[in-house]
Amino acid sequence: MPDLAPHGIEVALVHPQIAPNTGNVARLCVATGTPLHLVKPLGFQLDDRQIRRSAMDYWPRLRLTLHDDLSTFREAMAARRIWLFDSSGAVGLWNAQFLNGDVLVFGSETAGLPSAWLSAETERVIRIPQVPGERCLNLATSVGIATYDAIRRVQVAE
Amino acid sequence: MPDLAPHGIEVALVHPQIAPNTGNVARLCVATGTPLHLVKPLGFQLDDRQIRRSAMDYWPRLRLTLHDDLSTFREAMAARRIWLFDSSGAVGLWNAQFLNGDVLVFGSETAGLPSAWLSAETERVIRIPQVPGERCLNLATSVGIATYDAIRRVQVAE
Repeated sequence: MPDLAPHGIEVALVHPQIAPNTGNVARLCVATGTPLHLVKPLGFQLDDRQIRRSAMDYWPRLRLTLHDDLSTFREAMAARRIWLFDSSGAVGLWNAQFLNGDVLVFGSETAGLPSAWLSAETERVIRIPQVPGERCLNLATSVGIATYDAIRRVQVAE
Repeated sequence: MPDLAPHGIEVALVHPQIAPNTGNVARLCVATGTPLHLVKPLGFQLDDRQIRRSAMDYWPRLRLTLHDDLSTFREAMAARRIWLFDSSGAVGLWNAQFLNGDVLVFGSETAGLPSAWLSAETERVIRIPQVPGERCLNLATSVGIATYDAIRRVQVAE
């Protein structure tokens, strides 16, 4: 089973700041057949030279939805099951119960997700396990780890 | 279980070319308590400004072993169980049987691992599953996905 079958996991980046990170996430999304949501404001221009260099030839095949702001995105997700990623999360990645249709939501590299949102949905906040006391992972690396684990869970019978 | 316990997985990068990728892998290794092997020649100086910017404050806590060349590295690994990562791999990531002590080996961003090595150890070559026909993942993203899956397998009873 080296190839991925179609799946229903989606990824969202809220206010990403660093173009190469979004480029790498876009590359991941194309390689895994995962729709990507980007929530404005972004910390870069979408035609930024760097993101085009990171994303290159596969950018046109990205299933991208742009949302004008956070409230627009949250309205669009009202009927979806979302998971918020934060190092404060109470749910360990490997314990989350992922289902097709779930949207994995990541905050900006600098500010993370809004604390009011995190504290209103504590049972939906996932932490990627790490050794205690260390700084968190790079955003694109985190998205890769979480997306693959979610896809595994909806594709592989356990 | 949000925190990682000590584990025996290690990571090796053979001839990495792009400093920020190695910086991100170093950050991953510190965050997960994973020893890192770098096999020279590298495509950058280890004191390169970019890698220091990527790896920053946690670089001193990295458990790093430098190997002078590939044959030195392979001799050092003679008694270890290694897994080679390549998009041609016959073993799907989620089917590999990881054990503590295993070393996950990744080639350079440009050339991958030597084809003679891959074809001599086909049963140890892992492919990270992707949708068919797409270009492969970023190196640091691949290392993150594989390392977390290996750690999960040696830490979580299945």
